[in-house]
Amino acid sequence: MADRLITSLTNETVKAVRALHMRKEREATGRFLAEGLKFIGEALDQGRTPKLLLVGEDARPHPLLERARAETKAAGGEVVAVTHAILEKISRRENPQTVLGVFEQVYTPLSAIEPGAAPCWVALEQARDPGNLGTIIRTADAAGCGGVILIGDCVDPYSVEAVRATMGSVFAVAIARATAAEFLAWRQSWPGSVIGTRLDASVDYRGAAIQRPALILMGNEQAGLTDALAAACDVNVKIPMRGRADSLNLAIATGIMVYAVTDEG
Amino acid sequence: MADRLITSLTNETVKAVRALHMRKEREATGRFLAEGLKFIGEALDQGRTPKLLLVGEDARPHPLLERARAETKAAGGEVVAVTHAILEKISRRENPQTVLGVFEQVYTPLSAIEPGAAPCWVALEQARDPGNLGTIIRTADAAGCGGVILIGDCVDPYSVEAVRATMGSVFAVAIARATAAEFLAWRQSWPGSVIGTRLDASVDYRGAAIQRPALILMGNEQAGLTDALAAACDVNVKIPMRGRADSLNLAIATGIMVYAVTDEG
Repeated sequence: MADRLITSLTNETVKAVRALHMRKEREATGRFLAEGLKFIGEALDQGRTPKLLLVGEDARPHPLLERARAETKAAGGEVVAVTHAILEKISRRENPQTVLGVFEQVYTPLSAIEPGAAPCWVALEQARDPGNLGTIIRTADAAGCGGVILIGDCVDPYSVEAVRATMGSVFAVAIARATAAEFLAWRQSWPGSVIGTRLDASVDYRGAAIQRPALILMGNEQAGLTDALAAACDVNVKIPMRGRADSLNLAIATGIMVYAVTDEG
Repeated sequence: MADRLITSLTNETVKAVRALHMRKEREATGRFLAEGLKFIGEALDQGRTPKLLLVGEDARPHPLLERARAETKAAGGEVVAVTHAILEKISRRENPQTVLGVFEQVYTPLSAIEPGAAPCWVALEQARDPGNLGTIIRTADAAGCGGVILIGDCVDPYSVEAVRATMGSVFAVAIARATAAEFLAWRQSWPGSVIGTRLDASVDYRGAAIQRPALILMGNEQAGLTDALAAACDVNVKIPMRGRADSLNLAIATGIMVYAVTDEG
């Protein structure tokens, strides 16, 4: 059966999807946009079906696309066909993906996190850059981390730009959020090491004795980890700066930390 | 003495600087744009003076700015004052830096690279993303690498976006470029290990015996390292993928590699 076809840029469904570029709209609806069959497939493998599946009318047949159509409908979602012009408008790109999915945002409550489910977890304080955040989620997934905890006023992990940078890992790891106070209270019961990363720390990142599950705490791009959070860590470590650069990009520093911790033992 | 003040967006000097956003213009002039006092200071410390120093008329006095003015003039460069509107136009940003410098691009010839001058060097094949390239230059600097060699058709390291991502390290490490054939010929005389990074390699990146100076070879964002270059490596290694993600961002993978290599021994 052919999907319903939308051709008008002013169609209400199209307008609602385009509005997901705005944080306010994402928060009001609890939804987000994921682009491309790779993302859709990753979502389905994690048992997450789109509420709305948008398929370009020029999309080529693909078994994964058929599966997405079937699972979306079976779960009560809607499948619609759209024109190339609509895909461009929604994605704000000249070469848009031909399959888009609108999904429900999922945040794992801190209380539902099982530390022992993974050797390493990441917590970010006031991360500001969506590309960094998405890349960190991807990297955490690649390293086998359990998830990423967002502390305080962080950028939205469900922004279009952040989601793109995850390359699909947004569906693969737990994402949690907490105020600094909530995090500090919860951290009390963490069974392994809580490791802060600070440029002014005296312990080299490879020299710390780490008890798994490790919880790696990274600060804001400009200001680094605040004193309050650094003080709550079992150890604060630094990645050495051996050249002229006085710091690393946040996602790079996180990547080095998570691989250093997960490679050991 | 007051600097010459430019207030017109159509001034020839302003137009020439704005044109540096275009690769064609950068290649024709051999120049590039660096924004902010941090970058200018890094340049001066490396003996690189701007050909043209643009200072916002609302720029606050700063010893480093005075030094930049003096050294620019002493080296035969020009210093001009510009309006905030011109800074916005040039930077294409709403909150532009108040000091901009136009510098000559520097490429180190392969023949001038002294491998033993640093424990580690990075070579990138067909890197496509300017943010990745700039971040890699910053990371190479932080890790104490000697420089970054661009093989084949890479993105321009002197694009405004790439330079921004270097955070000033564009002045701190050698940047070289070569065709694949030139690189392969030059690589013959490399005194240490040449290490390729491939997802399909069988050796773990921490398990390879590495002779310094190490030369780390990274492939393109989508396709990875080509067979021709991988075959020219002493060893090809992989960074383990332990979750659902099937790859790492190029800059993240490079960061993990350079720190793994420079941390040892």
